[in-house]
Amino acid sequence: MFQAKARADVLKEVMNVVSTLVDEAKFSMTADGLTIKAVDPAHIAMVDLTLGKEAFEEFRADEGEIGLDIDKLSQFLKLARSDEIVDIKHDEDKKRLNIVIGDITRRMSLIDTTGMSDPKVPNLNLPASVTLKVDDLVQGIKASETVSDHIALSASSEGFEMNCEGDLDQVQWKKAKKDLESLESPSSVRSLFPLEYFSNMLRAVSAGVSVTMHLGNDYPVKVEFKIAGGKGEVRYLLAPRIESGD
Amino acid sequence: MFQAKARADVLKEVMNVVSTLVDEAKFSMTADGLTIKAVDPAHIAMVDLTLGKEAFEEFRADEGEIGLDIDKLSQFLKLARSDEIVDIKHDEDKKRLNIVIGDITRRMSLIDTTGMSDPKVPNLNLPASVTLKVDDLVQGIKASETVSDHIALSASSEGFEMNCEGDLDQVQWKKAKKDLESLESPSSVRSLFPLEYFSNMLRAVSAGVSVTMHLGNDYPVKVEFKIAGGKGEVRYLLAPRIESGD
Amino acid sequence: MFQAKARADVLKEVMNVVSTLVDEAKFSMTADGLTIKAVDPAHIAMVDLTLGKEAFEEFRADEGEIGLDIDKLSQFLKLARSDEIVDIKHDEDKKRLNIVIGDITRRMSLIDTTGMSDPKVPNLNLPASVTLKVDDLVQGIKASETVSDHIALSASSEGFEMNCEGDLDQVQWKKAKKDLESLESPSSVRSLFPLEYFSNMLRAVSAGVSVTMHLGNDYPVKVEFKIAGGKGEVRYLLAPRIESGD
Repeated sequence: MFQAKARADVLKEVMNVVSTLVDEAKFSMTADGLTIKAVDPAHIAMVDLTLGKEAFEEFRADEGEIGLDIDKLSQFLKLARSDEIVDIKHDEDKKRLNIVIGDITRRMSLIDTTGMSDPKVPNLNLPASVTLKVDDLVQGIKASETVSDHIALSASSEGFEMNCEGDLDQVQWKKAKKDLESLESPSSVRSLFPLEYFSNMLRAVSAGVSVTMHLGNDYPVKVEFKIAGGKGEVRYLLAPRIESGD
Repeated sequence: MFQAKARADVLKEVMNVVSTLVDEAKFSMTADGLTIKAVDPAHIAMVDLTLGKEAFEEFRADEGEIGLDIDKLSQFLKLARSDEIVDIKHDEDKKRLNIVIGDITRRMSLIDTTGMSDPKVPNLNLPASVTLKVDDLVQGIKASETVSDHIALSASSEGFEMNCEGDLDQVQWKKAKKDLESLESPSSVRSLFPLEYFSNMLRAVSAGVSVTMHLGNDYPVKVEFKIAGGKGEVRYLLAPRIESGD
Repeated sequence: MFQAKARADVLKEVMNVVSTLVDEAKFSMTADGLTIKAVDPAHIAMVDLTLGKEAFEEFRADEGEIGLDIDKLSQFLKLARSDEIVDIKHDEDKKRLNIVIGDITRRMSLIDTTGMSDPKVPNLNLPASVTLKVDDLVQGIKASETVSDHIALSASSEGFEMNCEGDLDQVQWKKAKKDLESLESPSSVRSLFPLEYFSNMLRAVSAGVSVTMHLGNDYPVKVEFKIAGGKGEVRYLLAPRIESGD
């Protein structure tokens, strides 16, 4: 059993986060809330999203899981105003999700979850962490996009920087420790990432939200931030690219 | 003889309504105003628009007709502010329409109306009628567009609903009698329509306008609404699709 | 040596003006400011832009020149707010331009200027001149764009007009002397121009700016206007098309 009511903007935030990596996803429910874990088709990135039942206006669920087409659901949610209440009910007999926005009911066939992986979030030892507003990061990403396909993230005890090196041009984005919300970096670390993935992840974060990135040396980056006004949280993991030393 | 002055927004409203069905149209004038009747190339829908001379700032016409390229005229009207006065004059000798917006004069060649049909609006016996704001209908249409190519309109003494059934998903939009501006439906009626046509028609109606739909069982729908602040009116007719019974 | 600071909107205005004709351009510096002269690849139009050092917040330069990719620079400037200060420094050793917006540094490779022409602005005897707001001209250009590929500019002692004649339709835009900021036209003059070039030039001018056009008979048009709040100026030259007399 799963039935819930939620503000449209909370559900849109969830869809934004998940749709950057996958078109379909498995939603796992317990009495306490909702979890979505997914790996992108190229196995380069992972999302782990938790939305507590207190993020909903109403939430009742037994333990269970359903497979959903993220695109269809996002499309339908566009019809709702941000503060409109969306009513969701799982019809177990007909294997559908019934979603009501105002006078409109959409009955969506569920996707078979049998083939869907159940990714395990690896336990990584990432020595450095840096916290800042997502908007600052997005500026740096935009500046980098025409220059190269990769972006290097580096942290030291002094500050945090992003570097993008193309054949002709370079972009450097840099913040000193005092201009960051927090910075812990016992040693200097640096890893290189595919820019498109990193860009899509950060652009899925709502404006004004603080983002914490955990970094190592040639290690994945873990990007953490809150959703639903703090009643939910997201962890993205992105695999590094190996730098061709020369 | 035909010469007239009108606010640009009145003319834009007329162009919006007509351009959903045809690229060229015959405008028929009398001393009392203007009529446009047209059938779309696939003979699925018809428009019958009347604009009284009181919708114009100035209007003088003998009985006559001219053929116009709707796209060109719409394009030119985009240059005018909503409240700007557009000056129109038929140059019979040169077979042109001269249109003045501010400092700009456009002289448009007329289209030969010989080949243009003169559609007769059929007299239909449609037992049910329902009136509501167009904005409500457009919400339901938007929700349906990704689901199927057809939409069913149904009325009963209880209320009015639109249903769209795809292979996987369904959309239902429903209003009870009390939430409609008016409803008359002595029996239950239902007809199926091509969604794209129905969508284009309703999207051509200005926001906030009340629309009356006349419905029967597997019969065309007649959509009626006012334009030019009540000084003109439009009737759209749309042919039904036969439901494949099973 | 070249280093300067400028408001982003001043630099964006410069990029708009130059990018209508070329993708790459040579910037010539002296102690007094900056000059850009360029001819479009088809040799139909020329731009001659001067930006005095007082248009900058800071400006220090020896005589010299650098070649720049206009598109890349425009793209990067989009990241800056209008009133944000952009910091520019020529790194002579590495043959790069280093541009700083906020926390972001972009290092752009310079383009070799060896092959770039050094267009000489011809000394033309253009008897007529007319001054008016660019916004008025742009309205007339928009009205013409669907009608023909050419536009005729004519001036007489009475007024100024633009005419566009297509196979079917005509557009005439006309202003009497009293509705122009200024008009000097000892005799009647008329020249025909490629509409796309003329349109691109005028659309690159900021809204509300006064433009002076110098005209002759089947002669180029010289379009002059100020940028950077009067601290810089632009001259565009556009070659005429010969009218096929009949």
